[in-house]
Amino acid sequence: MSDHRLLADPGALVAGATVALDDEEAHHLRVRRAEAGQGAKVFDGAGVTARGVLERTGKGWQVALSEVASHPEVLALVLAVGAGDRDRFLALAEKCTELGVTRLVPLLTDRSVQVETRMRASAVERAQRRAREACKQSGNPWATVVDALTSIDLLADRVQGVQWLRADPNGVSAWSIAAERPLGWLIGPEGGFTDAEAAMTTNRLGASPVQLGPHVLRFDTAAVAAAGFTKPRARRE
Amino acid sequence: MSDHRLLADPGALVAGATVALDDEEAHHLRVRRAEAGQGAKVFDGAGVTARGVLERTGKGWQVALSEVASHPEVLALVLAVGAGDRDRFLALAEKCTELGVTRLVPLLTDRSVQVETRMRASAVERAQRRAREACKQSGNPWATVVDALTSIDLLADRVQGVQWLRADPNGVSAWSIAAERPLGWLIGPEGGFTDAEAAMTTNRLGASPVQLGPHVLRFDTAAVAAAGFTKPRARRE
Repeated sequence: MSDHRLLADPGALVAGATVALDDEEAHHLRVRRAEAGQGAKVFDGAGVTARGVLERTGKGWQVALSEVASHPEVLALVLAVGAGDRDRFLALAEKCTELGVTRLVPLLTDRSVQVETRMRASAVERAQRRAREACKQSGNPWATVVDALTSIDLLADRVQGVQWLRADPNGVSAWSIAAERPLGWLIGPEGGFTDAEAAMTTNRLGASPVQLGPHVLRFDTAAVAAAGFTKPRARRE
Repeated sequence: MSDHRLLADPGALVAGATVALDDEEAHHLRVRRAEAGQGAKVFDGAGVTARGVLERTGKGWQVALSEVASHPEVLALVLAVGAGDRDRFLALAEKCTELGVTRLVPLLTDRSVQVETRMRASAVERAQRRAREACKQSGNPWATVVDALTSIDLLADRVQGVQWLRADPNGVSAWSIAAERPLGWLIGPEGGFTDAEAAMTTNRLGASPVQLGPHVLRFDTAAVAAAGFTKPRARRE
């Protein structure tokens, strides 16, 4: 059978050491009827992976680590997305790691706060877990970092050094985006950014309006399409 | 209040006529506490939209149509996708209409038939409904057409006149895709196409392997990323 794929805390993977697994990982191992002595590939979600062997510790599990590999950081690709429906947002967090998004920022906007099922502060940790879980399936050693809920106003201080693009049906074609530099997409909630919010992204963040397609996209579709569009471009180098 | 957005059968929208609404649309109107005399925008999902006025018919509803608009067909963008988890596939059908995918083909593959929660023939009609429902929210007058379940072997006869691309971690960069022609993406299920299936897409369909990114993508993520990547490109013309 193939190696078990497991998560550990960032920084926990050191060659020759053992790393204890948390309850959630132990649960996964129980479901898969794992046995001591089986092989494991462990991700810390922060650029480090390791191979090792499963060991029992009373009721829990640990992994005795051998080969440890450190993977270089990638070019920043940030998605700041209107914090609409929570379930769509959680699914998005998973897809972000698959697509190599480095950071996902749930944005408080005028229209997202009207969504009853919206993403709230209490679900950020769950979104982060979903993003980290996706390391195992996708093989990406870097989990997307999920930020706390933030307003557009505070975004300029929170995220620096990226060129901001605002998904906008009236924007220029995505094909005019400059490649090979850190990018951040601003994706409005259902109903879009208000005119005042769009103006604020221009004034405070220097965002340019960019069109992802001719139709109205739900926020999670727009976010995946934006990442799917941008990522291969950044990799042309 | 803004116009109600409603669905009608393909071909049912004729200026000066009235169109009866089905039970599902009637339910949406009840939930929104609609009243006779209110405005409506109706989509047939096959390129025709109309404006009209709501009327009661006993327990049901109809729309008296005025302006009818016919929208030109767009360049074919086909996604043939391993028929994995049903709920992910249904969500994908919705996103396909948003993204301007013209046709979505659920593919029977060696690895998708092992998925217990897989997309089955009985869910195709539901996927088609989801794709049609998305016309209302996205404003796309063309719903993605959802095909019956098909094998790779039969795909060559079912879908003609497109250049096939196979999403493949070892393929060439997506940036080498020729624009402005009908395209079809082949997206494997979880675990990917088998080697024999990949060879069949090359031999029977002339598919070229194209890489969407460095990590392993779930089938629904890959499909949205492929459409998000291809669509703006086709629109450069």
